[in-house]
Amino acid sequence: MRILVLGGDGYCGWPTALYLSRHGHDVTIVDNFHRRSWDHELGAQTLTPIRPLTERLRAWRRLTGKQIEHSVGDILDYEFLAEVMQEYAPEAVVHFAEQRSAPYSMIDRRHAVFSQVNNVVGTLNVLFAIKEFQPDCHLVKLGTMGEYGTPNIDIEEGYIRIQHNGREDLLPFPKQPGSFYHLSKVHDSHNIHFCCRIWGIRATDLNQGVVYGTVTDETALDEALLNRFDYDEVFGTALNRFCVQAAIGHPITVYGKGGQTRGFLDIRDTVRCIELACLNPAARGEFRVFNQFTEQFSVLQLAEMVHIAGKRLGLQVRIDHLPDPRVEAEEHYYNARHTKLADLGLKPHLLSESLLDSLVNIAMQHRERVDQSLLLPRVNWRNSRNDRRPKPEPVAIAAD
Amino acid sequence: MRILVLGGDGYCGWPTALYLSRHGHDVTIVDNFHRRSWDHELGAQTLTPIRPLTERLRAWRRLTGKQIEHSVGDILDYEFLAEVMQEYAPEAVVHFAEQRSAPYSMIDRRHAVFSQVNNVVGTLNVLFAIKEFQPDCHLVKLGTMGEYGTPNIDIEEGYIRIQHNGREDLLPFPKQPGSFYHLSKVHDSHNIHFCCRIWGIRATDLNQGVVYGTVTDETALDEALLNRFDYDEVFGTALNRFCVQAAIGHPITVYGKGGQTRGFLDIRDTVRCIELACLNPAARGEFRVFNQFTEQFSVLQLAEMVHIAGKRLGLQVRIDHLPDPRVEAEEHYYNARHTKLADLGLKPHLLSESLLDSLVNIAMQHRERVDQSLLLPRVNWRNSRNDRRPKPEPVAIAAD
Repeated sequence: MRILVLGGDGYCGWPTALYLSRHGHDVTIVDNFHRRSWDHELGAQTLTPIRPLTERLRAWRRLTGKQIEHSVGDILDYEFLAEVMQEYAPEAVVHFAEQRSAPYSMIDRRHAVFSQVNNVVGTLNVLFAIKEFQPDCHLVKLGTMGEYGTPNIDIEEGYIRIQHNGREDLLPFPKQPGSFYHLSKVHDSHNIHFCCRIWGIRATDLNQGVVYGTVTDETALDEALLNRFDYDEVFGTALNRFCVQAAIGHPITVYGKGGQTRGFLDIRDTVRCIELACLNPAARGEFRVFNQFTEQFSVLQLAEMVHIAGKRLGLQVRIDHLPDPRVEAEEHYYNARHTKLADLGLKPHLLSESLLDSLVNIAMQHRERVDQSLLLPRVNWRNSRNDRRPKPEPVAIAAD
Repeated sequence: MRILVLGGDGYCGWPTALYLSRHGHDVTIVDNFHRRSWDHELGAQTLTPIRPLTERLRAWRRLTGKQIEHSVGDILDYEFLAEVMQEYAPEAVVHFAEQRSAPYSMIDRRHAVFSQVNNVVGTLNVLFAIKEFQPDCHLVKLGTMGEYGTPNIDIEEGYIRIQHNGREDLLPFPKQPGSFYHLSKVHDSHNIHFCCRIWGIRATDLNQGVVYGTVTDETALDEALLNRFDYDEVFGTALNRFCVQAAIGHPITVYGKGGQTRGFLDIRDTVRCIELACLNPAARGEFRVFNQFTEQFSVLQLAEMVHIAGKRLGLQVRIDHLPDPRVEAEEHYYNARHTKLADLGLKPHLLSESLLDSLVNIAMQHRERVDQSLLLPRVNWRNSRNDRRPKPEPVAIAAD
């Protein structure tokens, strides 16, 4: 299958591109390296030393004989995107090319506006490019479970049948997203749904849970194929960050009571879900929603699991409850359906002791790369302006 | 009350500013004249000859002794907006400053992106400016009934109580908007709701129906205070356009079967609803939604009423059913609640024979200003690129 992976240099995009290439698909990566720039902006870097994209792709070719094309540019530049779409004529577009951090979107007004404009306009451009140049192409779009928020009822996959005053309808599930980033994904979902209705576009919205892990069969082939592993408060997802904290003897930072419950999945399942969605496309005009996660955990449960894994590995691990920098329910009902990908054949990698141990081990292996000043939350939802970095400590200047 | 009217030079904003000023409020208009520029872009103009804003304001002062301040700028320019917010320190911000035409947003990609970025970023800026400079200020935001689409159940005011698998919650009403413009309003609603939750902002989202009429007690005081009256296919609302068509002997253009049912209201009720919302502010942190319309009609019912009014006035009126340029249900269930503004004291001006006659009369009075080439729909939802204007007819050039 000819598949375009937008954002194919990022944390989920890179292992997805490799997985699809290894499984016989003809893959092209589009990326503008925004994700690498945000590292520079935040003074952060991935725990794992990743290589430049060109080097990654050379290694992939050397190791597997498979060629992944790439095209460098911004999907907000429609002229660029239109050329790519015409040149590669993809059968599926996998769209990871968005700003994906809730705290990043909450830094200040500029970052909120950037996140929404970047994500919403990028997706609008993708929709127009499909309509104009490749109308039969299937859009596989990364959404987030965070679009739903934490309603007091079971969360369905995209739609809910509502009975009201003696009538009934199947309607989009109500959305209560919890950051400007999560909001941008809700905006995308509404825009995509509309374009499916008016233009007959086929689309799958993957409401993904929180991803953990960094290694897939493909990235494990060679050091040059290493995937990102973010542990900073802005881009680090909960479990990855906890493992790094355990590895370096930093307290695990649970926000508030830790009763915040979310859907989680292993990055090895992310890449398989994407292929399943591609191989089983939505119908023309269909806006299909899958909840893409495999297990629910509360943040405190994860912290406790890392605590135990740390003990197994002889580490001193402490759990700290910090005042929650986010505005969210710290205890709530949460039960989200996630059967559609399983119905297509997903066999989940559930969170195991061995996976936890390997994550902590990866963190220990790269511990010299950890910048501890990036671990504590500095972006508070209650403020409209947040300092991104601690003030520099006074440095002794050598005398002449 | 100190009230800032964003978009106070437009069709709804101008009569609202006058009404609020006349009723003793201290009003400041903010506008960047986008609406007047779109006339130039589309080669269209309001049926009624409106004056420049400065002239309008001078006349208002001369006639009433009341001063309306104004500040010219774009709310997408945060530096400008922040200054205005600090200088006027409003108790309420009435936000009309958005691109409000569905067909305009459907012209092509550029217009879709413009509509969403303009509306979403403008509203984000307003939210940040309130949070940073005037946190107790009440945001009165113009939404649209079109956010709901046409579900097969009764439409509630913003929220619906859902029972599901033995549990229940009060959740945002599911949205199925029908154009990139309507989508922008849905995006706004989600963004505002979130800011109320995290920052304790007070906001009222007025999901307004289709507005008709042009005259209010205030605009009727003098020719210099005339309000816009748009009849072109892009900015003309259904009833206004039908009256112009009747007045000049052009067939009334009903799209499809005409069973499309919507909420409607008289512009004299728009201005009263705004004052009612301002005088009865939402609580801190409350995101309140009012459905702002007074009666439901199908498009065909309106056409038939104009047909009858035309006959009364001795006009030949024909109703044409055109293929629907929009993608929408031409027949559907529609029953939307609208009691909250009535509970606050709104006494509606229902659509009467005399109002219909006066609209047709206004159209007849200005018939020499009508450009017939602007009446037929040229923007088709099924296309991603629409010509905005008919090709010019060949013109005979005078020989030397």
